[in-house]
Amino acid sequence: MSEAFGTLIDGVEGTTVPIDDRGLQYGDGVFETLLLRRGHPRFLEAHLARLRLGCTRLGIHFAAMAELRAEVARFAAIAPSLAILKIIVTRGSATQRGYAPRGDAPPRRIVSLGPAPAPRTDFASGLQLQIAKLRLGENPALAGIKHLNRLENVLAAAELTGSASFDALLLDAGGSIICGSMSNVFVVREGAVATPLLDRCGVAGVMRGIVLRECHTLGIDITQERLSLSDLKAADEVFVTNARIGVVPVRRVGEHSFGMNRLALKLRAHIETLDA
Amino acid sequence: MSEAFGTLIDGVEGTTVPIDDRGLQYGDGVFETLLLRRGHPRFLEAHLARLRLGCTRLGIHFAAMAELRAEVARFAAIAPSLAILKIIVTRGSATQRGYAPRGDAPPRRIVSLGPAPAPRTDFASGLQLQIAKLRLGENPALAGIKHLNRLENVLAAAELTGSASFDALLLDAGGSIICGSMSNVFVVREGAVATPLLDRCGVAGVMRGIVLRECHTLGIDITQERLSLSDLKAADEVFVTNARIGVVPVRRVGEHSFGMNRLALKLRAHIETLDA
Repeated sequence: MSEAFGTLIDGVEGTTVPIDDRGLQYGDGVFETLLLRRGHPRFLEAHLARLRLGCTRLGIHFAAMAELRAEVARFAAIAPSLAILKIIVTRGSATQRGYAPRGDAPPRRIVSLGPAPAPRTDFASGLQLQIAKLRLGENPALAGIKHLNRLENVLAAAELTGSASFDALLLDAGGSIICGSMSNVFVVREGAVATPLLDRCGVAGVMRGIVLRECHTLGIDITQERLSLSDLKAADEVFVTNARIGVVPVRRVGEHSFGMNRLALKLRAHIETLDA
Repeated sequence: MSEAFGTLIDGVEGTTVPIDDRGLQYGDGVFETLLLRRGHPRFLEAHLARLRLGCTRLGIHFAAMAELRAEVARFAAIAPSLAILKIIVTRGSATQRGYAPRGDAPPRRIVSLGPAPAPRTDFASGLQLQIAKLRLGENPALAGIKHLNRLENVLAAAELTGSASFDALLLDAGGSIICGSMSNVFVVREGAVATPLLDRCGVAGVMRGIVLRECHTLGIDITQERLSLSDLKAADEVFVTNARIGVVPVRRVGEHSFGMNRLALKLRAHIETLDA
C-alpha cells in the first residue's frame, strides 16, 4: 500500500512490478494478509498452507517457500508491535500474449510490511453488518482460495460508503450466506457454532480455520453448512473473523439485532492468546 | 507483454507499475485489446465505448479519454502493418489498505504496443473448439465487461495445453453456452444467426458487437438468446469472433463436426473491409 514500510519483490527491495506481470494483466495469483504481533507473524503456517493450496489450485508452481519464509522473518524482525504483512504470489511475467499460462516464467512474490489500522474500541459491544446488494458468483474452481480476482469484494465494500457497517455480508444467487467482503461469518445456536460452506464461492479465511480448529479444542460443536438469512436471524449470536481483527461479535445485521455474545467473546479471548 | 514495442503509463514511457496499483492488488480495472491494421486502430470507438462502460460499471472515474486517444494515435503512427494495442485502465494506486475504493487516487492507464501473432492459415477451413471442464460463475454485476478478473479465462485456456483446439468453449453452471476463453461464439440456423446472452457472465467482445451491427446492415436475422450444447450441435454453422481474428468459422466442437461455413465466410469477408 501507499504507506508500506517496505516491500521485497523476489527478495529485492522495490516498489514496482513489470506491467507484464500476470497478476496485473489477469489477477493471476494469490495473496495473504498476516497480522504481525510483537514481531510474530500470527498463524504463519496456516497462511502459508492456504497460499500453497491457492497456487496448486491455480497451477502456479511456487517453489520459493524457503525464500518467502526468510522474507517474512526479515520483516518480522523490524516490525512495530502491531503491523500487517501482505504477501502476493503471481504467476509472474507473461512470456506470451494470451490467457494460457505457459509455465516458463517463475512466479513473482511480493512481500510488503505496512502499519496495522488503529484498533477499534467497539469489539466487545459488537459490530454492525449490512446485507450486500451484490450476490457472489459461484465457481467451485476458485472457491475458498484467496486469489487476486477480487472485484466482487471491491464492489461489495463500495456499498459500505457512508455506512456505519463494519462489513457487507454477501449471499450467493440462491440466497445462502457466504461471507463478508473481508471477513467470515459464524452463527451460534444453543451453544453450537455453524459457518457457511465455502465450496462454491467465498474465501476460507485463515482465522475461520483457526476457529474451526479451536472449537474442536474447546469442545464446542461446529459445523460447515448452507445457512440462510433466516438461519442467521434465528441465531443467538453472530460473529465475524479475519486475520486482523480475530473473532469479533456482531450486534446487528441490517435491521436485526443480536443481544448475546458470550461464546464469541470466549472464543475471542482464547484465540487472542494463540500465535500459531 | 514481454515483447512489447513500447508502453505508456499515464502518458509516460515506462515498464512498471507501483505494487499498490489496485489492478495488481485486486484485478480492479478493465482492459481492451485492439488490432492495429496499416496504422489504423480497428473499431476504436467500440473499444473505447466498452472501456467507458466497464469503468462506469465498476465506479472507476476515468476522465482521461482525450489523453488515451492521443496515446493510441501515437502508437498507431509507429506501428507495423499489423500490431496489437492493449489498453489497461485500473482504479489506480490504493491510498488505504482494503477493498473499498476511496475515490481519491486517479485511475492509471497503461497502453502497450506489441506484435500481432502470425496469421493462421486455417481460417477458411475452420477452427476446432473443445468444451471447457470449467464452468463460468454468474455475476450480472460483472457480466459483459472486460475487467481484469480473468482467472476463469486463464484456467479455461490452461485446459488447451497440448490440444489442437483454438479455444475452450465455456458453459455456465446451468449448461448454457456463454463464450470461448478469448472469443465469442455464434450459431447459424437456416440462415439466421444467434449468439449467447451475456447478462450473467462472459465478455461481450467488440467484434461480437460488430457482428450484431453488421448482420442488421446485411439483413441477416440475429438474436441474443440462451443456447445449449444441443442448440449448438443442431446448427448449420458455428463461428467465433474476437478483435484479433475477426470472424472465423468453426469446423469442430468436441466430437461434433460442422460442414458449411458459407454465412461465416460472407460475414468475415464483409467485416474485413471495415475499420470502424
